[in-house]
Parts: sequence; C-alpha cells; structure tokens
Amino acid sequence: MDRRSFLKNTALGGTAAVATTALAAPAYAQGKRTLTLVTTWGRGLAGVHDAAQRAADSITSMTDGDLTIDLKAAGELVGAFEVFDAVTSGQADMYHGADYYFVNQHPGYAFFTAVPFGMTSQEQFNWYYQDGGKELHDELGQIFGLKSFLAGDTGAQAGGWFSNEITGPEDFQGLKFRMPGLGGAALGKMGASVQNLPGAEVYQALASGAIDGTEWIGPWADEKAGFQEITKIYYTAGFHEPSAGLTLATNRDVFESLSPAHQKVIEVAAAEAHSWNLTQFLANNGAALQRLQSGGVTVREFPDSVWDAMGAAAQEVLDENMGDELFKKIYDSMRTSMASSSGWINRSINTYAAQRDRVLG
Amino acid sequence: MDRRSFLKNTALGGTAAVATTALAAPAYAQGKRTLTLVTTWGRGLAGVHDAAQRAADSITSMTDGDLTIDLKAAGELVGAFEVFDAVTSGQADMYHGADYYFVNQHPGYAFFTAVPFGMTSQEQFNWYYQDGGKELHDELGQIFGLKSFLAGDTGAQAGGWFSNEITGPEDFQGLKFRMPGLGGAALGKMGASVQNLPGAEVYQALASGAIDGTEWIGPWADEKAGFQEITKIYYTAGFHEPSAGLTLATNRDVFESLSPAHQKVIEVAAAEAHSWNLTQFLANNGAALQRLQSGGVTVREFPDSVWDAMGAAAQEVLDENMGDELFKKIYDSMRTSMASSSGWINRSINTYAAQRDRVLG
Repeated sequence: MDRRSFLKNTALGGTAAVATTALAAPAYAQGKRTLTLVTTWGRGLAGVHDAAQRAADSITSMTDGDLTIDLKAAGELVGAFEVFDAVTSGQADMYHGADYYFVNQHPGYAFFTAVPFGMTSQEQFNWYYQDGGKELHDELGQIFGLKSFLAGDTGAQAGGWFSNEITGPEDFQGLKFRMPGLGGAALGKMGASVQNLPGAEVYQALASGAIDGTEWIGPWADEKAGFQEITKIYYTAGFHEPSAGLTLATNRDVFESLSPAHQKVIEVAAAEAHSWNLTQFLANNGAALQRLQSGGVTVREFPDSVWDAMGAAAQEVLDENMGDELFKKIYDSMRTSMASSSGWINRSINTYAAQRDRVLG
Repeated sequence: MDRRSFLKNTALGGTAAVATTALAAPAYAQGKRTLTLVTTWGRGLAGVHDAAQRAADSITSMTDGDLTIDLKAAGELVGAFEVFDAVTSGQADMYHGADYYFVNQHPGYAFFTAVPFGMTSQEQFNWYYQDGGKELHDELGQIFGLKSFLAGDTGAQAGGWFSNEITGPEDFQGLKFRMPGLGGAALGKMGASVQNLPGAEVYQALASGAIDGTEWIGPWADEKAGFQEITKIYYTAGFHEPSAGLTLATNRDVFESLSPAHQKVIEVAAAEAHSWNLTQFLANNGAALQRLQSGGVTVREFPDSVWDAMGAAAQEVLDENMGDELFKKIYDSMRTSMASSSGWINRSINTYAAQRDRVLG
C-alpha cells in the first residue's frame, strides 16, 4: 500500500489493519509528488530541450502523475549555468544539461558530454551501458550529491560557423570563438580566445560581433538558432564533440527518498531519452543541411594541418588533467572500451557498409 | 484510485464516497496483473534472451509488480516459432522474438528485424523512432491484433560458419545453410538449400551434418552457442542482417485493457531494451572475436563477386514482394529515411572518425 492510499484510508477512518500496513511501509513511499527540473536550455531550443521534455513527460506518464516532473527552462527558475548548484543545494530537484558545462566542478564531467578526439555516439553508448561509464558517472555524482544518468545525445557536432575560411591552424590565433568543455580549452591552446556561452545567448553574441564564430550543435539545431543569417561559412565535421551526451541528474537525497519503482522509472526514462534524442538529431540534420546549402551557406572541411593541430592541442588538454586520479580513471576506462569494441565494428558493420555502397552504387 | 485500492477498501467496508470514486474509474484500472511473455529464444541464449528478460524486468520493476511479466522461454509454454500464434490467439499475452520469423504471416515483418542490404542499426533506429518505422510496425500489428515495439538489436550479424572457404557465388550451389528471413530467400536464389531453424536447434543440426553451415548472430553469441567446436571457418561481415531488430509484441486487446501509464511503461521499457541490447552485443563481440581467433578459428571476408551476387539476389527477393502494397510502403519508407540521413552522417561522423584514426594513428 502506498502513502496516498494510506492517507485516503485514514481520512475515511481506516481500521487498525490498515494502519498496521501503513506503518510497515518503508519511508520512501510518499504518494503523489512533484519534482522541479531545471535545464541548461532555453525553452524550445531544438533537440536539447526536447530531450529534457521527453524524459520529464515519460516519468510523469509512466507513474500516472504520482511523480510529476515540472520543467523549468533556463532563466525560468535559475540561469542555465546555475542548475548544478541549484540541484546540489536542493533549490531544485533535478537538472537536464550537458555535464561538460561543469568541468570547473570536476574535469571528469567532460567525458559524459564529450572530450575532443573522443568517443562517437555508439562508442559512448557501449562504454556507458556496458563498460563502466555509468558507474563512473555515479562515482562523480556521489562527490556532489547527485544521481546522474545520460538522457540525450546530439550526435557528432559540427565544426561550426566562421566569418572567414580556415586555411591553417594559424587562423585560430586571436579568434573569438564560442566552444565549451575541453574542446574549448584545446582551441585556447591553438591561440583562440574561447568563450563558454549558454545556447540562448550565442546568436546575440555572434550578431553583435562579441564573438567571431561559434559551434553549436549541427545543421538542424543551428538552422533553428539562425546562425546562417549572420555568417555563411559552415564546417560540418569537428574535433571537439564526436558525440555529446546530455545528463538528467537528481539530487541524491531526493532520489533516495523515492521508491525503487520510481527510481527505476527515472533511470529507464533517461535511457530512452538518450537514444531517442540521437535519432532525432540524425533524422533532422540531413534535410537541414540541404536547406542551409540552398540558402547560400558554404559547407567546408578543415584541412589536415588543422586536424593535426587540433589533435595535438586536444591531447595536451587531456594530459593536463591526468594528475586528477578520477579523471585518469575515467579516461583509461573510455580508451579501453573504445579499443575493445573497434575490432568487431570494423570487420562487421564498416565492411558491410562499404560493400553495400559499392554494390548499390 | 486503482482497482487494487478499491478492492481493499471494499473489503474493509468502503463508504459511499469510495464507491463513487471507484465507479468513476475507467475500465482499464485493474490493479495487480501478471502477463505471460513467450519468446523465440532458449532460456539463457546470449543477448537475445537477455533483451527479453531486461524488458520484462523493467516493466515489473517500474510498476512495483502491479504489472508482473512472467517470461517463458522457447519450449516452456510454446515452441519458438509458435509465439506469434500464441499471442494473436490470446494463449499468451506477449512475445519477444525476431519478427522476420513471421514473414509467412506478412512479408513486411522482415523490415522490423532485417532485410538483406538494408539498414545498419543506427539507420534502423532513425527510421523507427523518427521517420515512420514505428507507425508502420503498428499498422502491421493492427492486422494481426498485436501492439509491437522494437525491444532489442543484435547489431550487424556475421556472415556465418562454413565447412569450406567460399571463393565465388557458385560455392553456394546446393549448400545446406541455416538463414531466416529474406536473406535466406536470397541465398536460395543463389542455389543454397536454405533452412530456418530456431537458435536452440542450430548447434545439433550443424553437428549432425543436417546443415553444412549456419549464420547465427556474431562472435559473442556464436561462441556461446559453440559453433567453433564444429567448424573453424568464420565470415565476419554478412549481407543478410546489417542490423537485427527484436520485437516485444503484446496482444492488442490485452494492451488496450491496460492503463495509459502501464502502456507507456511497456513502450519505454521496450525502447530501453532496444538500445541497451545493441551495446551489449557490440561491447562483447570484440573480445569474443579475439578468443575465437586464439582458439583456431579462421576469420574471412566474402570476395567482391559473392557480394555482387548477394546484392542481385537480395534485390530479386525484395522485388518479388513489391506486389504487396504494405510491403512496398514499408520498403519505400525505409529507403527514404536512409537517403535522408546519410548526407549528414557522411559529412560529420564518418569524416571525424577517419580524421581521428589518421591523427591518432
């Protein structure tokens, strides 16, 4: 019997038998409850807000409202980058965001969104659900009083929007560019003046000239953000976020006060939003890229010399963090997982895809 | 108020107020309920049984047992290939299996497992959740009285186990080979004598010489099945199942008798099992392939002439089914989705992966 039934029964004048059942119920049974979810996304921000909303709606639906998730977008309760503090302090119950926004809390958070030259989406899924990634996310969460699950993925992010063509690594010298996480730190090593702005503020910064360029996500979300109205040079492949995981984190005391069934609902809803969100981005990016090109956007790829410089800068940034024991532990775990799964993936799916494209033309 | 509370209250001598609430409750509120899940998998069959068990456990856990799923493996209640009839007739409530086992019910079921030269796993996920695949699965389900959701994926399947090396398409002439679905039909066009055996029976058939060779899944599941004890020639890439989706299907009357919350629980649990199962196969296949090779298995790839013949045979089989309106509708939907997402995937993730491998060496 849950607390709701208990309260109803009590109101009706429950018998001794009912009271006994209620007393025997564990402390987590609390009937209907609303949890406040704050996000790092402006309301309606394509894809990323959708992932938060989907997880919230799944939880509410699956519990028939016994656990109702009240989503407050960035700025509605706290600012985008204040969500971590809001949830660890108990001001809000949950946040949805990109954990690399919080590398100043712990650099290990980078791995749960993206690290430069790191995992593709499928590699990140494999690592997270099978090779210890999820447990390491939880180890970080224990430090800060959070229970975290991946709950979204943008797929590989675009290199970004530039005012001028990039012909070599020297073009990043002095460039004012928006890029969060360790990718941004790597760009700093290449001489860029790197800024970490939440999504809702990027358009204005680019339009006003406060920044020379920006990465955001990919064609679909970038088109909705409207960057093509300001600049027409778009680099499709990037080094900084080969997959970008998004996190649903619950205050750990709140999480532990929930019934095991509701805890499981949160965990499964997060995982469903994780893979669903990736399909959303991948299904929409193709058509958006075509529209951008039709609208006059020039699509480019960085030359090898830039990729080489990015690779060196990325390794430098990763190495700088290896002094932190947990960071190194997460890095080693990621590398081991990537190496373990790559042999089969190359021999099966990659061989198939190459033969299919050859045979079907 | 749910029916369970109602019954308890009634037993306690509920007041008029309680009775009114209960009468207002919709017909689907029925309290604790056990659903019987039959599967096409022998108990413990690596990966595929796990997907069924994971979906079942998630549903039971998320509902705190209000909806308890009782899993009966192949042979425990009905045989592997009898699950479709068992659920459509109401003998069992749900099945977990590979829908291409049921192409004799409708050829369109092939797409929800695999068609030769069809979708990779990510392409199938994109199509299913974003580009109409799920709705087409439901359209098929309406014909047979099922509510179906994808709830597992083996990833790209291996070409299979052979007694002798394959040097050209003529080597398939008269070969007794186990392969289900439209891939098997295509192999038949190449002259093979194709058999469709459930997983639990394949080892014995291969050991006894009833078949000359077999495909099953991939290194991890194949190793557990023990085929390396019988033959040592293994083709890693195959044309027949570039992704193999698994389905959780519920008798439609049963599904519609459940509360919206419990319906959502089944849908989300299935989707979580879908992506989780793919990571399980991908994370385990790499190490298993290495163990097989260490144990004396020779790993090979089909020559281009065989891939060409497979491509022609696959198209012939697909074309033979185009007279069925729904089959053609599903085929067209798949092809449109694949074409739409491929441009971005090539320019982003594939470009990134190639640069990463070049830079990191």
